[in-house]
Amino acid sequence: MTADCAPPRRSAAGPPPAPPDRPAAVRGPVHLVGTGLMGASVGLGLGGRGIEVTLEDPSPSAQAVAVQIGAGRPRQTGDRPPALVVVAVPPDVTAPVVAAQLHRFDQAVVTDLASVKAIVLDELAQAGADLARYVGSHPMAGREKSGPAAATADLFTSRPWVIAAAPATRPQAVLRVRELASDLGAHPAYLDPAAHDRAVALVSHVPQVLASLTAKRLTEAEPGALDLAGQGLRDMTRIAASDPRLWSAILAGNGPAVAAVLRGLREDLDRAIAALDLGAEPANLGRALVELADLIAAGNRGAEAIPGKHGGARRRFDKVTVMVPDKPGELGRLFQEMGRLGVNLEDLSLEHGARQLVGLAEISVPPGAGPGLAEDLERQGWRILR
Amino acid sequence: MTADCAPPRRSAAGPPPAPPDRPAAVRGPVHLVGTGLMGASVGLGLGGRGIEVTLEDPSPSAQAVAVQIGAGRPRQTGDRPPALVVVAVPPDVTAPVVAAQLHRFDQAVVTDLASVKAIVLDELAQAGADLARYVGSHPMAGREKSGPAAATADLFTSRPWVIAAAPATRPQAVLRVRELASDLGAHPAYLDPAAHDRAVALVSHVPQVLASLTAKRLTEAEPGALDLAGQGLRDMTRIAASDPRLWSAILAGNGPAVAAVLRGLREDLDRAIAALDLGAEPANLGRALVELADLIAAGNRGAEAIPGKHGGARRRFDKVTVMVPDKPGELGRLFQEMGRLGVNLEDLSLEHGARQLVGLAEISVPPGAGPGLAEDLERQGWRILR
Repeated sequence: MTADCAPPRRSAAGPPPAPPDRPAAVRGPVHLVGTGLMGASVGLGLGGRGIEVTLEDPSPSAQAVAVQIGAGRPRQTGDRPPALVVVAVPPDVTAPVVAAQLHRFDQAVVTDLASVKAIVLDELAQAGADLARYVGSHPMAGREKSGPAAATADLFTSRPWVIAAAPATRPQAVLRVRELASDLGAHPAYLDPAAHDRAVALVSHVPQVLASLTAKRLTEAEPGALDLAGQGLRDMTRIAASDPRLWSAILAGNGPAVAAVLRGLREDLDRAIAALDLGAEPANLGRALVELADLIAAGNRGAEAIPGKHGGARRRFDKVTVMVPDKPGELGRLFQEMGRLGVNLEDLSLEHGARQLVGLAEISVPPGAGPGLAEDLERQGWRILR
Repeated sequence: MTADCAPPRRSAAGPPPAPPDRPAAVRGPVHLVGTGLMGASVGLGLGGRGIEVTLEDPSPSAQAVAVQIGAGRPRQTGDRPPALVVVAVPPDVTAPVVAAQLHRFDQAVVTDLASVKAIVLDELAQAGADLARYVGSHPMAGREKSGPAAATADLFTSRPWVIAAAPATRPQAVLRVRELASDLGAHPAYLDPAAHDRAVALVSHVPQVLASLTAKRLTEAEPGALDLAGQGLRDMTRIAASDPRLWSAILAGNGPAVAAVLRGLREDLDRAIAALDLGAEPANLGRALVELADLIAAGNRGAEAIPGKHGGARRRFDKVTVMVPDKPGELGRLFQEMGRLGVNLEDLSLEHGARQLVGLAEISVPPGAGPGLAEDLERQGWRILR
C-alpha cells in the first residue's frame, strides 16, 4: 500500500541521512511560510548549510523571533523567486496557504509539513491547484515546547520524513523535497497520502487517544489508590499530558483513519469485557482465560513488531539492575563509577515508584559484559538486583 | 473507601521503611508455603534479618532451589509451630492453601500475597475458615523473571505492601503482617479487600489491557507504517510484552473490578469515535473539536494525579537534552563527562527512534542548574537541543 511515486523505493525506511559535511543538495532560495517550531527549524537547518532562506508569518512577533534567531530574512522587492516553498502552518489552514503559494510562485515546488496528508491533497484538488508542483510531506519530529524560540537546526536529525506525493506530482518535484529532507539530516520515507494517514493513526494518534482515556479513568480514583501506581502506569500515561487544543485538531484532521482503528480496538475491548464477565461463572473460567490470554498474546506480537532502535529485530543486551538510593548525588556517583569503569553503555532506564527511597537503574551493556560490570559495581559498594 | 482496620491509618502511604539496622520486629518461626519469586524473596529477606524460616513447595525442585539459595529450610518433626505463615501461591489456589494452613497451625497468623483480595476472602468465608487469624496482603513488587532463582532479599524495598484485612481480622494479626512488611523494607498501606481490588484494577490491570489492545492493532500495520513509530508508542506498549498465562489469571481473578473500569473507558471511547465521525462534516467540526479537547484535558488531569517519585506533587527540574551519537561508547563518554562535572543528577531518560543515528538523553537536574550544565557540556563538544 506504499506509494509508487518516484523515486521508486517502496520501503518507508530511507538511506542514512547525509553527513553534515556533504554539500547541500537543495538550491535556494527557499521561502518559508509559517515560522513556528517546525518552520523556523527548517530555516535554521538550511541557513546553517549556506542556503538562502526567506520567511513570512502572519504573526509579526513570531516572524521577528524567527529572523532574530537566524532562521531567515523577510522577502524584499527584487528577490529572486524561490525554487522551493515550505509551508509550515496548522493542518486546517494548510491547503489554502499551499494553493496561494503555488499561484504566487508559478515555477516553485511547494511542500507542506502538516501531520495529515489526504485531507490537504483533497482540498487542493478541489481548489484546482497545480498538483504537479505540490509534494505533501511530514517530518516525524517535534518537541514538548513550541514556537520559533524552541526551534533548532537539529530537530529533524535522524527522524523519518514522510514524502506523500500525489499521482499527479512530477518526479522532479519529489526529488526537491527528498533533497530538503536529506539536507536536514532526516530519513526520507515514501508513503501515499492515505497510507501515511493510516500509519500515523496507528503509531501516533490512536496511542494518544488510548493514553488519554486510560489517564481519564484515574480522575475517579479512590483515596490512596494512586499511591499503588508503578512504572507501567507511568509509561502508559506519559503522553496523556499532551496539549488538548493541538491534539484535538490533529485527531479531527485524521478522523476517518483514527476512527477506523478505534473501531477495531473497541471490538477487542468488548471481547475483553465479555471474557471478564464470562469468567465470573466458575464453569466458564477456562473459556474466559483462553480468550484473555489470546488478546494478551496478540498484544505481545504487536509490541514485538515495533522496530528496535537500530531497526529490524530488537537487539538483546545484558542487563544489570543497580539499586540507587534516592538522595542527591547518588545517580551522579553511579555515573562517575561507570565512567571510571569505561562501561560501554547501550541503554539505561530509571525506575522510581511513589515515595520510594530507592530507584532502580537498569543498565544495558553488550552481551557478555553484564556479569563483569555487576561484580565491578558490587566491589564498589553498589547493590545489584540479581 | 479505605479500610478502617487497625492500625487506623487511612492513607495508603505508610511511614518510611525500617532502616536495615533496626532489629527485626517479626518473631519467628515463619513458615513459607510456595517458594516462587515472591515466597523465596520473603524467605531471603527474613533470613537475612536473623529470623528462623521454614518452607515448603509442591514442586520439589522449586523447594530445593529455595533451600539452596538460603530462603529457609524444610520443616522437621519437633519444629516449634510457626507464629506466622506466608502463603505465596497463584491466586486461584490461594484460598484452599490458606484454609489448610489456618487449620494446621491453630495459633498462627496466616497471610497470603495474592494480587487479588476480595475473591480469596469470599472463598475463605464460605469455607468457614478462622478469619480472625487471616490477613490478606499484597506486596506491589515483581520482576520480569520468575521462580526462586530470581528471588532477592531486596524485592520489597520501598514498595507499597497492601494490607487488606477483613472486619473479622484481629488487630494483633494485622500488626504481625505490618511487621513483616516493615522488616522487608516495604511501606505498609491499608485498604479493604474490595478497595484494593478496585485500586489495582485502575493502576495495573486496566493499563495492561489497554497496552495489549493498542499493541494488538499493530499486528495489522501496513508495510513501512511501524518505521514511523516514536517514543510515545514504545512507552505505551512496553507492558504489552507481559506473559499471557499469568495475566489472564490476574485479570480473571479481578474480573468485576476490571470490567467496571473498562465499561467506563468504553463509554469514553464511544464518545471519541462519535466526535471523530461528527468532525467529518465541516459544519460540525467545532463541536467535534470541543468534545475531543475535553477528553484529552480529562486525561491531562488523570496523568497529573499520579504521585511523583517523591510522593505528592511532581517536582520540577531543569531539563537539559543532549544529542548522543548512537555508536558504542558515546553514552559511556557522556556518563564520564557528567561524573567529572559532578552533576547532581535527578533523573535521566533516553530516547531512540527506529534507525536513528542519534539518541536524545534528557537530563534532569535541580532547578537553576540546567543552563550551567548545558554550557559545560557544550564546551566539551556535546550538542545540546535547545
